[in-house]
Amino acid sequence: MQTYVSPSKSEWIGLCRRYFPNPQELETIVNAIINEVKANGDQALFKLTKKYDKVDLLEFKVPTDSIEKLTSSIPASLKESIAIAKYNIEKFHNCSIPDERKIETTKGVFCWSKRVPIEKVGLYIPGGTAPLFSSILMLGIPAMIAGCKEIILCSPPNKEGLLSPVVLYTARLLGIENIYALGGAQAIAAMAYGTESVPSVDKIFGPGNSFVTKAKELVSKSTVAIDMPAGPSEVLIIADESADPEFLAADLLAQAEHGPDSQVMIVSNSMDILQKTQLAIATQIKNLPRKNIAEQALSHSRSIYFKNINRCFEFSNEYAPEHLILSLHNALSHIDKITNAGSVFLGKYSCESAGDYASGTNHTLPTNANAKAYSGVSVESFQKKITFQRITKEGLQKLGPHIEILADAEGLQAHKNAVSIRLKKIKNV
Amino acid sequence: MQTYVSPSKSEWIGLCRRYFPNPQELETIVNAIINEVKANGDQALFKLTKKYDKVDLLEFKVPTDSIEKLTSSIPASLKESIAIAKYNIEKFHNCSIPDERKIETTKGVFCWSKRVPIEKVGLYIPGGTAPLFSSILMLGIPAMIAGCKEIILCSPPNKEGLLSPVVLYTARLLGIENIYALGGAQAIAAMAYGTESVPSVDKIFGPGNSFVTKAKELVSKSTVAIDMPAGPSEVLIIADESADPEFLAADLLAQAEHGPDSQVMIVSNSMDILQKTQLAIATQIKNLPRKNIAEQALSHSRSIYFKNINRCFEFSNEYAPEHLILSLHNALSHIDKITNAGSVFLGKYSCESAGDYASGTNHTLPTNANAKAYSGVSVESFQKKITFQRITKEGLQKLGPHIEILADAEGLQAHKNAVSIRLKKIKNV
Repeated sequence: MQTYVSPSKSEWIGLCRRYFPNPQELETIVNAIINEVKANGDQALFKLTKKYDKVDLLEFKVPTDSIEKLTSSIPASLKESIAIAKYNIEKFHNCSIPDERKIETTKGVFCWSKRVPIEKVGLYIPGGTAPLFSSILMLGIPAMIAGCKEIILCSPPNKEGLLSPVVLYTARLLGIENIYALGGAQAIAAMAYGTESVPSVDKIFGPGNSFVTKAKELVSKSTVAIDMPAGPSEVLIIADESADPEFLAADLLAQAEHGPDSQVMIVSNSMDILQKTQLAIATQIKNLPRKNIAEQALSHSRSIYFKNINRCFEFSNEYAPEHLILSLHNALSHIDKITNAGSVFLGKYSCESAGDYASGTNHTLPTNANAKAYSGVSVESFQKKITFQRITKEGLQKLGPHIEILADAEGLQAHKNAVSIRLKKIKNV
Repeated sequence: MQTYVSPSKSEWIGLCRRYFPNPQELETIVNAIINEVKANGDQALFKLTKKYDKVDLLEFKVPTDSIEKLTSSIPASLKESIAIAKYNIEKFHNCSIPDERKIETTKGVFCWSKRVPIEKVGLYIPGGTAPLFSSILMLGIPAMIAGCKEIILCSPPNKEGLLSPVVLYTARLLGIENIYALGGAQAIAAMAYGTESVPSVDKIFGPGNSFVTKAKELVSKSTVAIDMPAGPSEVLIIADESADPEFLAADLLAQAEHGPDSQVMIVSNSMDILQKTQLAIATQIKNLPRKNIAEQALSHSRSIYFKNINRCFEFSNEYAPEHLILSLHNALSHIDKITNAGSVFLGKYSCESAGDYASGTNHTLPTNANAKAYSGVSVESFQKKITFQRITKEGLQKLGPHIEILADAEGLQAHKNAVSIRLKKIKNV
């Protein structure tokens, strides 16, 4: 971790820069995969799965009867913890649905909006080193609450062609029946354009490696929406002298172990805390199984001192972190200073892992400063809002003449006519 | 307009296809413009404005004192109609802000979310043949209600280097002070990356020609968000025998006059209504100033007969129109059949022009079947939602062990440690 003391504002742009090794050839490779899936459907999927996942599959859809067998070995304690997480996430997400409201803007002119589920959604769940079943909870629960009719899940098969039992268990628990052993850019292409065995969807959600992320970006230009632009995970901690350096180190390492391109930042008005945190990191990292990954992440991470705490918030807002931890005396009193962040953790016992798994908030959050304009995933991400209006005869008589004047001023005669023709008929009846 | 009688479902994909003349070279040209602005800032803007708008400007920012002079000639009747539209749009949009809620998901675990304004937003308002001041109302009002701190507006200058008085008047009325005489892809690039005189923003809104649309798509890949992917405007009408063919024709023409690439669709269970509508179009189009444009739009538009009205809704949901007009007996009784649409107009007096200008709903809506996954612009489009959590010592004691189990199952030891280290300290105190 590099240390910076009271950097001036002109240095902030550099300090807010993420680590982004985005090879030029990635787009070419991913484009080729997408085009192959578009052109050859399942045939391309079989070929690409053999190439990238090193397995010959006979079908992608996981047979329902095989799920029960595969999930029987999951320990009861894990099942219980998943149930607790599910309960909390449901409880929080259930409360985010605003009501419909009908407004009479002018006498006889009624306007309202209605949230309607996106019909077909696709969830991508990474496989690889760790089965990220927590992402199934974070995406599947809001999709279910939103009322999406068709929810499909894609996750890469292991070398036996199987998905992790806990992935299957979690999907099943939520009632997701359409599960495909399919990963990488080819899974994204299949969900975007559809193949013989994989239906196309209206919106694709979920994290993934650089292939998956690039594929999501590319398909979102044409037919399908995506949850948000993705980048490596990140955390920023604002700490004062009341913080516990061991907790800070643990939180920074929890983020750093995600991937070598993750970035962790600590900003403080206490030099002492910053130094002690560095020492604690050095101690704690020794025993981490993912030490190697964490070390790489730390190499492009930053520890920054500012004289006062408001400056720390200014910097944080410019950085716009995915996760923001406030390890401050009376953290709650500072929240109105936050203008840009994905999810905020208040006080020394609110560790980020809680939000990653089980406290109730969503862990699918905007990275790479996208928190300036994007929100994390919520039930609303699985819905769209349709507006409605009903205008009575009297309403049109009252409002119509103004519409005529406005359309006229914009030079749109046919827009005006649509009103005039009605007003004339109302008058003549 | 081409007519189709009871087309089978296999034909629907073709019938739902929009008219999209998207020249390959467009991306190359727009990319070059963006790169030039990124590299040379204002200097590039002056050069590009001279090239595309045929005017030599000394500055882009419209001086505040010139606005009063320029807007003095606007007739009182137009000012009054703008005021009425503003009132209705404000009234409807004010009602769309859901409250903050705080949930205790587990004892001692508090989660909530808060809508926070996007700090810096840019509004693009097309110039050209007609000054689309109505778009200023539709974007500026929700931006103001959302509480955006910095709102800038770009609109292309005419050959005298000026903006339309009514554009300036409307912006002024909303309190938008930072107005730039700047158009095209160069305006989008300036708002995305910033130049000496144009500040960069976090999100760009507004309609535009193919250059503007392509530029928005390209800049949204990097640093800035955009309102939604854009395409030509469109309407779909579902009509039964109770409809008035003259009204239907007027509504179809109002949409058709937008641009040669607009698409208008009418779907009905009455052959008689479809035929009479075609006749009414032929009559009404004769006197339109934008007849030429409307004729081109009609050439790739469709009139479709289905035996029953539910089939019409099925087709409409597949088409996912930007504007959906229900000219049906008891239109309200059908609204639960609508799964995909931007904005819906119910009954024979609810003409689309009303929503375009003054009824209160927003006219910035998803086109090109994006209504399947996107919503129109609302106050929420100018905000992001930040989630918060506060966990007490007791909360962590209760939830912590589950987080440990879940992190362990995902193979993320440092995530687990962030909890364990805290639980240990709590125990030892």
